[in-house]
Amino acid sequence: MTMSLDDVRYELALANRIIAHEGVLDGFGHVSVRHPDDPGRYFLARSRSPELIEPSDLLEFTLDSEPVKPPKGEMYGERVIHGCIYQARPDVNAVCHHHSLAILPFCVADAPFAPVFHMGPVMGQTVPLWDSRADFGDTDLMVSKPEEGRSLARALGPNWMVLMARHGATVAGRTLRELVFRTVYSHANAEIQWRAMAIGNIAPLNEVERQRAEPRQLQPRPMARAWEYWTTRLQKAGELPPAAKSRASGPKSKKRVSKGRARRSRR
Amino acid sequence: MTMSLDDVRYELALANRIIAHEGVLDGFGHVSVRHPDDPGRYFLARSRSPELIEPSDLLEFTLDSEPVKPPKGEMYGERVIHGCIYQARPDVNAVCHHHSLAILPFCVADAPFAPVFHMGPVMGQTVPLWDSRADFGDTDLMVSKPEEGRSLARALGPNWMVLMARHGATVAGRTLRELVFRTVYSHANAEIQWRAMAIGNIAPLNEVERQRAEPRQLQPRPMARAWEYWTTRLQKAGELPPAAKSRASGPKSKKRVSKGRARRSRR
Amino acid sequence: MTMSLDDVRYELALANRIIAHEGVLDGFGHVSVRHPDDPGRYFLARSRSPELIEPSDLLEFTLDSEPVKPPKGEMYGERVIHGCIYQARPDVNAVCHHHSLAILPFCVADAPFAPVFHMGPVMGQTVPLWDSRADFGDTDLMVSKPEEGRSLARALGPNWMVLMARHGATVAGRTLRELVFRTVYSHANAEIQWRAMAIGNIAPLNEVERQRAEPRQLQPRPMARAWEYWTTRLQKAGELPPAAKSRASGPKSKKRVSKGRARRSRR
Amino acid sequence: MTMSLDDVRYELALANRIIAHEGVLDGFGHVSVRHPDDPGRYFLARSRSPELIEPSDLLEFTLDSEPVKPPKGEMYGERVIHGCIYQARPDVNAVCHHHSLAILPFCVADAPFAPVFHMGPVMGQTVPLWDSRADFGDTDLMVSKPEEGRSLARALGPNWMVLMARHGATVAGRTLRELVFRTVYSHANAEIQWRAMAIGNIAPLNEVERQRAEPRQLQPRPMARAWEYWTTRLQKAGELPPAAKSRASGPKSKKRVSKGRARRSRR
Repeated sequence: MTMSLDDVRYELALANRIIAHEGVLDGFGHVSVRHPDDPGRYFLARSRSPELIEPSDLLEFTLDSEPVKPPKGEMYGERVIHGCIYQARPDVNAVCHHHSLAILPFCVADAPFAPVFHMGPVMGQTVPLWDSRADFGDTDLMVSKPEEGRSLARALGPNWMVLMARHGATVAGRTLRELVFRTVYSHANAEIQWRAMAIGNIAPLNEVERQRAEPRQLQPRPMARAWEYWTTRLQKAGELPPAAKSRASGPKSKKRVSKGRARRSRR
Repeated sequence: MTMSLDDVRYELALANRIIAHEGVLDGFGHVSVRHPDDPGRYFLARSRSPELIEPSDLLEFTLDSEPVKPPKGEMYGERVIHGCIYQARPDVNAVCHHHSLAILPFCVADAPFAPVFHMGPVMGQTVPLWDSRADFGDTDLMVSKPEEGRSLARALGPNWMVLMARHGATVAGRTLRELVFRTVYSHANAEIQWRAMAIGNIAPLNEVERQRAEPRQLQPRPMARAWEYWTTRLQKAGELPPAAKSRASGPKSKKRVSKGRARRSRR
Repeated sequence: MTMSLDDVRYELALANRIIAHEGVLDGFGHVSVRHPDDPGRYFLARSRSPELIEPSDLLEFTLDSEPVKPPKGEMYGERVIHGCIYQARPDVNAVCHHHSLAILPFCVADAPFAPVFHMGPVMGQTVPLWDSRADFGDTDLMVSKPEEGRSLARALGPNWMVLMARHGATVAGRTLRELVFRTVYSHANAEIQWRAMAIGNIAPLNEVERQRAEPRQLQPRPMARAWEYWTTRLQKAGELPPAAKSRASGPKSKKRVSKGRARRSRR
Repeated sequence: MTMSLDDVRYELALANRIIAHEGVLDGFGHVSVRHPDDPGRYFLARSRSPELIEPSDLLEFTLDSEPVKPPKGEMYGERVIHGCIYQARPDVNAVCHHHSLAILPFCVADAPFAPVFHMGPVMGQTVPLWDSRADFGDTDLMVSKPEEGRSLARALGPNWMVLMARHGATVAGRTLRELVFRTVYSHANAEIQWRAMAIGNIAPLNEVERQRAEPRQLQPRPMARAWEYWTTRLQKAGELPPAAKSRASGPKSKKRVSKGRARRSRR
């Protein structure tokens, strides 16, 4: 019951736009998903801002972050982040790298990032901090080389989010929708923690609370509810991605799809 | 002079959307109202984000939070919050549970929440803090079981708002409109108090000022003015709920209602 | 070269909407202007939220804040703020009372409010703080009685803005446009000062700088530029007030006015 | 391969609107570009708010900030900022003066402004602070006279951004697009640094990281990606500038241009 590749591309464009529309991604950052039928491949857009991504912008890469076909446009400079995490973590099927204004303060100040409300544990039980200085000294801070991507993947370890000193964060998920959920609500946790720290000493969730809250929040019901909320907001803003071109190619698929698209693009 | 059930459903959908549109509710949280003719029942939506609620999403529950009819969709996991408060407080006819970004810092940091401007006392004279750890130890923080709902209702006591440690807040009202008013302006108070604490020592209202300001702000004139403001803002944003289906069933009601709807949905 | 009363009403509705659209006024607060031909009268809306005000909502009051004609709707509870300032200050021709989220922290915390950037002195050289406790003890904080309005006007003295402890602020202007300018940029100053206080010790403008900057910023050129900016923003948002009804009454005025209105309401 | 003057005017109007739409410029502030064919001239709008600028608002000035033709409308009072920087810095071809709410706190509080994330170094390696008091004592804080403009240009020195105490900031670029990039991302850096300082001690980029990150971020690929993002956002908001009038004058240019405009103004 795997999705068609057209659906994978459409949903990845959608995920890019949702994370941007909810204020986590701006002009930079990117979202990828592993190929549903070939674990040695992943999809990632050509170099373009997330809120503009269309299904036709999506390229297929090997886990060495080499494009499977010669790309028509430019590629993201930091795609090794994605490839190296897929190599290191067979359980990860989606990755987002971003520079959220709520999370960056925790990459700049000496304040530990921790789950402070019931949805916070979707960041995972622990969020390590990776500093490019440790392995590579003084760089331009970009994660461009395979060894930089591997260093970051090692820092992520078995967790679901890693902070990157003076740079941003990278989040992983078992599915694309889980990734979006982890990304949006870890960003919310950062905003709440930041506000709480301005008015007093804070008391985060303890270890048992984190262990119990993470799977509870990642159940299908809350995830489906949030997905409907985010896609409806995109739709009301007129920001849903256009349908993939190949959708209109076959008569059978055309019928099914054009109906779905009409519903999606209704305002 | 009770409202028709259609009007109750429409107004509850409206209240959900207002509280979301004014920035208090996001994808999660929920709003309920007691059945106007049967104090042993209440209305609450199926599991759906507040800003999307339509009259047809509203389900009827007993005070044990059991659905009166088998529900078509999923139900909110925390509906016992509503049922248990209606059981404990016959004077309460509407309840909102939310995770406002302005109020959550007061559920995380050791800073007391207090009315700091003339509208702040709509939060009630005192706002207690409930911590799930006191009665239940380390949980996933959700209020899912009847005993958890009863514990929360006890913490609320005779007040109108209760903070929930590491989780959010629950607000009560004698009417649905009073609830919306208390919810929106306690959120505003939190924002002001948070900002004031960042620049100096604060001086909240004293006890007599609180006692005098609360009933003054809850008079019909300010409440009506705010209601017109919020519904007009929803209308201008194209976010009013659709009319309930049953409205179009009878010729007499149809006439009156379709006129009202036309006016409401004009942009 | 006085304006017609229709133009006065239209511009007052516009001023209400501008101050709301720029984020200073929310559902509460109000703006008034003195009658251009009769200094013993002023115009103020019926009890309605500023961003909804239409020219037909405007009522005429004596300086005792009594309506000249029996009003069709409810009246603002705090209109004595306006009447008492017009009585005390013949040079004041427009007044705004508001509860800006940027300014309220300075009404709650023990932090002095001062001009910190070149436009800040439009708040006036000094901004006194009025506390209802000084003259009236523990009240509901509303300025409802003539003696309360007179106390506030005394606190304002020869200045252009007065903070109201645990309540908000009142701003005055020689003209309606000057009032809007003073209101919007004192709000901006509060936001900047609040942000600056969060990161270090601040150095406001000194006395001579304030004296030189205030008249410079209130010159016709910057005021006209801001007015075009604010009205264009309202127009683009589809939020301009509808034309006054009486405008369509005479053939001559109709022609001139309908042209102006057409231009204004173009999107 | 210089641009036509029509394209220069259109792109300058666009730059004004982008910087306003991204939240850096409000009703005041201005953006200029040096004449592509005559280094002794520059283009700057008549006195109008940046988000409203149209190509036909742009005037041509000598480096003494005198208009080449008698202007139809008012001129900005601080245009010497532009002329004096073009005189002092032959490598600068675009200048923006603004009062960003994120950057002003660093012009008011005693907190040094520094690059804290990988894109921060687009502010340049060092950002000096100019204080009008040093050379001119107590003024109205405006940069109106040639000697004030020259003092500011000296403070800027070989850098790309200068903070102005109690006033705002001025940014320079080798090209107009580089200027926009430096302006938007130095504003983002200020927001992140401000947030980080509220929760702990901060660790900015070190000297080598700054030297390596600045040219990396100013490469054509990230700059083109951001430009597409900003212009698409303007387009979706219906805020693209109208085409210059002279574009429609010649048959050849008309054809090429009207096509471009149609694509740009599609919603």
